[in-house]
Amino acid sequence: MKYGIAVFPSKKLQDIANSYRKRYDTKYAKVPPHLTLKDPFEMEEEKASELVTHLRKVAEQSVPFTLGVYKYSSFYPVTNTIYMKVRENAELTSLHEKLNSGTLEKKLEHAFVPHITIGQEMNYDELSDVIGRLELETINHEETIDRFSLLYQLENGTWTVYETFLLGKNDQ
Amino acid sequence: MKYGIAVFPSKKLQDIANSYRKRYDTKYAKVPPHLTLKDPFEMEEEKASELVTHLRKVAEQSVPFTLGVYKYSSFYPVTNTIYMKVRENAELTSLHEKLNSGTLEKKLEHAFVPHITIGQEMNYDELSDVIGRLELETINHEETIDRFSLLYQLENGTWTVYETFLLGKNDQ
Repeated sequence: MKYGIAVFPSKKLQDIANSYRKRYDTKYAKVPPHLTLKDPFEMEEEKASELVTHLRKVAEQSVPFTLGVYKYSSFYPVTNTIYMKVRENAELTSLHEKLNSGTLEKKLEHAFVPHITIGQEMNYDELSDVIGRLELETINHEETIDRFSLLYQLENGTWTVYETFLLGKNDQ
Repeated sequence: MKYGIAVFPSKKLQDIANSYRKRYDTKYAKVPPHLTLKDPFEMEEEKASELVTHLRKVAEQSVPFTLGVYKYSSFYPVTNTIYMKVRENAELTSLHEKLNSGTLEKKLEHAFVPHITIGQEMNYDELSDVIGRLELETINHEETIDRFSLLYQLENGTWTVYETFLLGKNDQ
Protein backbone atom coordinates (compact mmCIF):
# COMPACT_ATOMS: atom_id res chain seq x y z
CA MET A 1 0.00 0.00 0.00
CA LYS A 2 1.05 3.53 -0.54
CA TYR A 3 1.25 5.73 2.54
CA GLY A 4 2.06 9.38 3.09
CA ILE A 5 2.30 11.84 5.98
CA ALA A 6 0.82 15.31 5.77
CA VAL A 7 -0.52 18.26 7.71
CA PHE A 8 -3.96 19.64 6.96
CA PRO A 9 -4.09 23.35 7.80
CA SER A 10 -7.18 25.19 9.02
CA LYS A 11 -10.39 25.22 7.01
CA LYS A 12 -9.70 28.87 6.23
CA LEU A 13 -6.34 28.15 4.58
CA GLN A 14 -7.67 25.01 2.87
CA ASP A 15 -10.53 27.05 1.37
CA ILE A 16 -8.06 29.65 0.01
CA ALA A 17 -5.86 26.89 -1.43
CA ASN A 18 -8.87 25.17 -3.01
CA SER A 19 -9.95 28.38 -4.74
CA TYR A 20 -6.77 27.96 -6.84
CA ARG A 21 -6.57 24.17 -6.82
CA LYS A 22 -10.01 23.86 -8.37
CA ARG A 23 -8.63 25.41 -11.56
CA TYR A 24 -4.96 24.54 -11.50
CA ASP A 25 -4.36 21.35 -9.51
CA THR A 26 -4.84 18.02 -11.27
CA LYS A 27 -5.01 16.36 -7.83
CA TYR A 28 -7.74 18.66 -6.53
CA ALA A 29 -10.22 15.82 -6.05
CA LYS A 30 -7.68 13.34 -4.67
CA VAL A 31 -6.81 14.90 -1.31
CA PRO A 32 -7.59 18.09 0.66
CA PRO A 33 -5.01 20.92 0.63
CA HIS A 34 -2.00 19.89 2.69
CA LEU A 35 1.65 20.32 3.57
CA THR A 36 3.55 17.10 2.85
CA LEU A 37 5.82 15.94 5.67
CA LYS A 38 6.78 12.65 4.08
CA ASP A 39 6.49 11.82 0.41
CA PRO A 40 4.35 8.83 -0.56
CA PHE A 41 6.06 5.51 0.15
CA GLU A 42 5.23 1.84 -0.30
CA MET A 43 4.76 -0.29 2.80
CA GLU A 44 3.05 -3.60 3.48
CA GLU A 45 -0.23 -3.10 5.30
CA GLU A 46 0.95 -5.56 7.98
CA LYS A 47 3.63 -3.10 9.00
CA ALA A 48 1.19 -0.27 9.63
CA SER A 49 0.84 -0.90 13.35
CA GLU A 50 4.62 -0.79 13.82
CA LEU A 51 4.73 2.48 11.90
CA VAL A 52 1.87 3.92 13.97
CA THR A 53 3.70 3.08 17.20
CA HIS A 54 6.76 4.86 15.88
CA LEU A 55 4.75 7.89 14.72
CA ARG A 56 3.13 8.21 18.14
CA LYS A 57 6.58 8.47 19.68
CA VAL A 58 7.70 11.01 17.09
CA ALA A 59 4.58 13.08 17.75
CA GLU A 60 5.06 12.94 21.52
CA GLN A 61 8.64 14.07 21.18
CA SER A 62 7.69 16.95 18.90
CA VAL A 63 5.91 20.22 19.58
CA PRO A 64 3.24 22.23 17.77
CA PHE A 65 4.65 24.61 15.17
CA THR A 66 3.67 27.81 13.45
CA LEU A 67 2.58 27.43 9.88
CA GLY A 68 3.20 30.78 8.26
CA VAL A 69 2.36 31.34 4.61
CA TYR A 70 4.08 34.48 3.33
CA LYS A 71 4.11 34.26 -0.45
CA TYR A 72 3.28 32.27 -3.55
CA SER A 73 6.04 30.59 -5.48
CA SER A 74 6.76 27.99 -8.14
CA PHE A 75 8.96 24.93 -8.56
CA TYR A 76 9.36 25.69 -12.26
CA PRO A 77 11.41 24.51 -14.13
CA VAL A 78 11.81 21.37 -11.96
CA THR A 79 8.06 20.79 -12.01
CA ASN A 80 5.20 22.95 -13.25
CA THR A 81 3.88 23.40 -9.73
CA ILE A 82 2.77 26.54 -7.92
CA TYR A 83 2.43 26.69 -4.16
CA MET A 84 2.00 28.69 -0.99
CA LYS A 85 5.43 29.04 0.53
CA VAL A 86 5.57 28.10 4.19
CA ARG A 87 8.11 29.77 6.46
CA GLU A 88 10.72 27.34 7.76
CA ASN A 89 11.17 27.08 11.48
CA ALA A 90 13.03 24.79 13.87
CA GLU A 91 9.98 22.84 15.06
CA LEU A 92 8.77 22.07 11.53
CA THR A 93 12.26 21.20 10.28
CA SER A 94 12.82 18.92 13.25
CA LEU A 95 9.51 17.13 12.69
CA HIS A 96 10.30 16.64 9.02
CA GLU A 97 13.71 15.23 9.91
CA LYS A 98 12.23 12.76 12.40
CA LEU A 99 9.75 11.57 9.78
CA ASN A 100 12.50 10.98 7.24
CA SER A 101 15.26 9.40 9.29
CA GLY A 102 15.93 6.24 11.31
CA THR A 103 13.49 3.49 10.30
CA LEU A 104 11.73 6.04 8.10
CA GLU A 105 14.87 6.93 6.21
CA LYS A 106 14.66 7.13 2.48
CA LYS A 107 16.87 9.02 0.12
CA LEU A 108 15.12 12.34 -0.29
CA GLU A 109 14.72 13.32 -3.88
CA HIS A 110 14.81 17.00 -3.06
CA ALA A 111 15.52 19.39 -0.21
CA PHE A 112 12.60 20.08 2.14
CA VAL A 113 10.78 23.16 0.95
CA PRO A 114 7.68 23.36 3.13
CA HIS A 115 4.73 24.29 0.94
CA ILE A 116 1.05 23.84 0.15
CA THR A 117 0.55 22.99 -3.51
CA ILE A 118 -2.14 25.00 -5.29
CA GLY A 119 -1.40 24.02 -8.88
CA GLN A 120 0.47 21.21 -10.62
CA GLU A 121 1.03 19.72 -14.07
CA MET A 122 0.20 23.15 -15.50
CA ASN A 123 1.21 24.09 -18.99
CA TYR A 124 3.95 26.67 -19.10
CA ASP A 125 1.87 29.57 -20.39
CA GLU A 126 -0.75 29.18 -17.68
CA LEU A 127 1.82 28.68 -14.94
CA SER A 128 3.71 31.72 -16.08
CA ASP A 129 0.55 33.82 -16.18
CA VAL A 130 -0.79 32.65 -12.81
CA ILE A 131 2.47 32.90 -10.87
CA GLY A 132 3.04 36.33 -12.38
CA ARG A 133 -0.24 37.49 -10.89
CA LEU A 134 0.20 35.65 -7.57
CA GLU A 135 3.64 37.13 -6.97
CA LEU A 136 1.97 40.53 -6.81
CA GLU A 137 -0.52 39.37 -4.19
CA THR A 138 0.03 39.74 -0.48
CA ILE A 139 -0.57 36.76 1.73
CA ASN A 140 0.38 36.71 5.35
CA HIS A 141 -1.27 33.90 7.21
CA GLU A 142 -0.17 32.29 10.45
CA GLU A 143 -1.68 29.46 12.42
CA THR A 144 -0.57 26.84 14.91
CA ILE A 145 -0.39 23.23 13.77
CA ASP A 146 -0.76 20.67 16.54
CA ARG A 147 -1.17 17.45 14.56
CA PHE A 148 -0.21 15.47 11.48
CA SER A 149 -1.94 12.65 9.63
CA LEU A 150 -0.94 9.28 8.23
CA LEU A 151 -2.81 8.60 5.00
CA TYR A 152 -3.06 5.72 2.56
CA GLN A 153 -3.98 5.78 -1.08
CA LEU A 154 -6.96 3.98 -2.61
CA GLU A 155 -6.94 2.41 -6.06
CA ASN A 156 -8.60 5.48 -7.57
CA GLY A 157 -5.74 7.69 -6.39
CA THR A 158 -7.61 9.38 -3.52
CA TRP A 159 -6.22 9.42 0.01
CA THR A 160 -7.91 8.29 3.24
CA VAL A 161 -6.67 9.37 6.67
CA TYR A 162 -5.66 6.36 8.76
CA GLU A 163 -4.73 8.15 11.95
CA THR A 164 -4.01 11.60 13.34
CA PHE A 165 -1.12 12.25 15.73
CA LEU A 166 -1.09 15.12 18.19
CA LEU A 167 2.20 16.96 18.60
CA GLY A 168 3.67 17.08 22.07
CA LYS A 169 0.86 15.21 23.77
CA ASN A 170 1.60 12.14 25.79
CA ASP A 171 -1.89 11.83 27.19
CA GLN A 172 -3.94 11.87 24.00
CA MET B 1 -18.64 24.83 10.53
CA LYS B 2 -20.17 21.58 9.50
CA TYR B 3 -18.87 18.46 11.23
CA GLY B 4 -19.61 14.78 10.87
CA ILE B 5 -18.46 11.50 12.40
CA ALA B 6 -17.72 8.46 10.28
CA VAL B 7 -15.85 5.20 10.03
CA PHE B 8 -13.57 4.50 7.09
CA PRO B 9 -13.39 0.77 6.44
CA SER B 10 -10.34 -1.05 5.06
CA LYS B 11 -8.80 -0.06 1.75
CA LYS B 12 -10.19 -3.30 0.31
CA LEU B 13 -13.79 -2.41 1.13
CA GLN B 14 -13.31 1.23 0.13
CA ASP B 15 -11.99 0.11 -3.26
CA ILE B 16 -15.03 -2.12 -3.80
CA ALA B 17 -17.38 0.71 -2.78
CA ASN B 18 -15.58 3.16 -5.07
CA SER B 19 -15.98 0.84 -8.06
CA TYR B 20 -19.71 1.61 -7.77
CA ARG B 21 -19.47 5.15 -6.38
CA LYS B 22 -17.46 6.29 -9.37
CA ARG B 23 -20.51 5.76 -11.56
CA TYR B 24 -23.42 6.18 -9.20
CA ASP B 25 -22.49 8.43 -6.28
CA THR B 26 -22.71 12.20 -6.78
CA LYS B 27 -20.50 12.62 -3.70
CA TYR B 28 -17.77 10.31 -4.98
CA ALA B 29 -15.15 13.09 -5.02
CA LYS B 30 -16.23 14.68 -1.74
CA VAL B 31 -15.25 12.01 0.80
CA PRO B 32 -13.87 8.45 0.80
CA PRO B 33 -16.32 5.53 1.26
CA HIS B 34 -17.57 5.51 4.84
CA LEU B 35 -20.14 4.42 7.38
CA THR B 36 -21.78 7.48 8.94
CA LEU B 37 -22.00 7.38 12.74
CA LYS B 38 -23.31 10.89 13.16
CA ASP B 39 -25.00 12.93 10.46
CA PRO B 40 -23.45 16.29 9.52
CA PHE B 41 -24.14 18.98 12.12
CA GLU B 42 -23.32 22.65 12.55
CA MET B 43 -20.99 23.66 15.38
CA GLU B 44 -18.86 26.72 16.05
CA GLU B 45 -15.20 25.98 15.46
CA GLU B 46 -14.43 27.26 18.98
CA LYS B 47 -16.35 24.33 20.43
CA ALA B 48 -14.27 21.73 18.61
CA SER B 49 -11.87 21.11 21.50
CA GLU B 50 -14.74 20.46 23.89
CA LEU B 51 -16.24 18.02 21.39
CA VAL B 52 -12.90 16.29 20.92
CA THR B 53 -12.53 15.80 24.68
CA HIS B 54 -15.98 14.25 24.76
CA LEU B 55 -15.28 12.02 21.76
CA ARG B 56 -12.08 10.74 23.37
CA LYS B 57 -14.12 9.63 26.36
CA VAL B 58 -16.73 8.00 24.15
CA ALA B 59 -13.99 6.17 22.24
CA GLU B 60 -12.30 4.99 25.44
CA GLN B 61 -15.58 3.67 26.77
CA SER B 62 -16.35 1.83 23.55
CA VAL B 63 -14.85 -1.27 22.00
CA PRO B 64 -13.83 -2.28 18.48
CA PHE B 65 -16.67 -3.79 16.47
CA THR B 66 -17.15 -6.12 13.55
CA LEU B 67 -18.17 -4.46 10.34
CA GLY B 68 -19.93 -7.11 8.31
CA VAL B 69 -21.31 -6.35 4.88
CA TYR B 70 -23.76 -9.02 3.81
CA LYS B 71 -25.86 -7.55 1.00
CA TYR B 72 -26.67 -4.59 -1.16
CA SER B 73 -29.82 -2.64 -0.55
CA SER B 74 -31.63 0.61 -1.31
CA PHE B 75 -33.37 3.39 0.60
CA TYR B 76 -35.82 3.86 -2.27
CA PRO B 77 -38.42 5.38 -2.17
CA VAL B 78 -37.22 7.57 0.75
CA THR B 79 -34.09 8.51 -1.16
CA ASN B 80 -32.63 7.20 -4.40
CA THR B 81 -29.64 5.74 -2.59
CA ILE B 82 -28.05 2.31 -2.87
CA TYR B 83 -25.72 0.95 -0.23
CA MET B 84 -23.82 -1.94 1.29
CA LYS B 85 -25.86 -3.13 4.22
CA VAL B 86 -23.85 -3.49 7.42
CA ARG B 87 -24.89 -6.08 10.00
CA GLU B 88 -26.08 -4.52 13.24
CA ASN B 89 -24.36 -5.56 16.43
CA ALA B 90 -24.36 -4.41 20.04
CA GLU B 91 -20.97 -2.65 19.92
CA LEU B 92 -21.83 -0.63 16.81
CA THR B 93 -25.31 0.23 18.06
CA SER B 94 -23.90 1.33 21.40
CA LEU B 95 -21.28 3.53 19.75
CA HIS B 96 -23.92 5.13 17.53
CA GLU B 97 -26.09 5.81 20.57
CA LYS B 98 -23.26 7.46 22.48
CA LEU B 99 -22.52 9.70 19.51
CA ASN B 100 -26.13 10.80 19.28
CA SER B 101 -27.13 11.31 22.90
CA GLY B 102 -26.23 13.52 25.85
CA THR B 103 -24.48 16.68 24.67
CA LEU B 104 -24.49 15.23 21.17
CA GLU B 105 -28.23 14.69 21.16
CA LYS B 106 -30.12 15.76 18.10
CA LYS B 107 -33.46 14.56 16.90
CA LEU B 108 -32.57 11.79 14.48
CA GLU B 109 -34.33 12.10 11.19
CA HIS B 110 -34.33 8.37 10.66
CA ALA B 111 -33.60 5.11 12.45
CA PHE B 112 -29.99 3.97 12.40
CA VAL B 113 -29.45 1.67 9.46
CA PRO B 114 -25.69 1.08 9.34
CA HIS B 115 -24.55 1.26 5.75
CA ILE B 116 -21.90 2.32 3.26
CA THR B 117 -23.41 4.38 0.48
CA ILE B 118 -22.37 3.39 -3.04
CA GLY B 119 -24.88 5.43 -5.05
CA GLN B 120 -27.09 8.45 -4.43
CA GLU B 121 -29.29 10.93 -6.27
CA MET B 122 -29.75 8.29 -8.95
CA ASN B 123 -32.60 8.46 -11.38
CA TYR B 124 -35.20 5.80 -10.81
CA ASP B 125 -34.49 3.73 -13.90
CA GLU B 126 -30.80 3.47 -13.16
CA LEU B 127 -31.35 2.75 -9.47
CA SER B 128 -33.87 0.07 -10.30
CA ASP B 129 -31.53 -1.52 -12.83
CA VAL B 130 -28.43 -1.42 -10.61
CA ILE B 131 -30.09 -2.65 -7.41
CA GLY B 132 -31.76 -5.42 -9.40
CA ARG B 133 -28.34 -6.65 -10.44
CA LEU B 134 -26.68 -6.09 -7.04
CA GLU B 135 -29.35 -8.03 -5.20
CA LEU B 136 -28.22 -11.09 -7.14
CA GLU B 137 -24.60 -10.62 -6.11
CA THR B 138 -23.06 -12.26 -3.10
CA ILE B 139 -21.03 -10.14 -0.75
CA ASN B 140 -19.80 -11.39 2.55
CA HIS B 141 -17.12 -9.22 4.01
CA GLU B 142 -16.09 -8.90 7.63
CA GLU B 143 -13.47 -6.75 9.26
CA THR B 144 -12.73 -5.25 12.66
CA ILE B 145 -13.13 -1.50 13.09
CA ASP B 146 -11.03 0.00 15.85
CA ARG B 147 -11.43 3.74 15.18
CA PHE B 148 -13.74 6.52 14.02
CA SER B 149 -13.03 9.95 12.60
CA LEU B 150 -14.29 13.48 13.20
CA LEU B 151 -14.44 15.39 9.93
CA TYR B 152 -15.29 18.93 8.87
CA GLN B 153 -16.54 20.18 5.55
CA LEU B 154 -14.73 22.68 3.35
CA GLU B 155 -16.49 25.31 1.25
CA ASN B 156 -16.26 23.12 -1.85
CA GLY B 157 -18.21 20.33 -0.11
CA THR B 158 -15.26 18.00 0.50
CA TRP B 159 -14.46 16.64 3.95
CA THR B 160 -11.17 16.80 5.86
CA VAL B 161 -10.41 14.50 8.81
CA TYR B 162 -9.79 16.52 11.96
CA GLU B 163 -8.99 13.68 14.33
CA THR B 164 -9.17 9.91 14.63
CA PHE B 165 -10.31 8.21 17.83
CA LEU B 166 -9.27 4.69 18.79
CA LEU B 167 -11.97 2.49 20.28
CA GLY B 168 -11.30 1.07 23.71
CA LYS B 169 -7.84 2.53 24.10
CA ASN B 170 -7.03 4.63 27.10
CA ASP B 171 -3.34 4.82 26.34
CA GLN B 172 -3.44 6.12 22.80
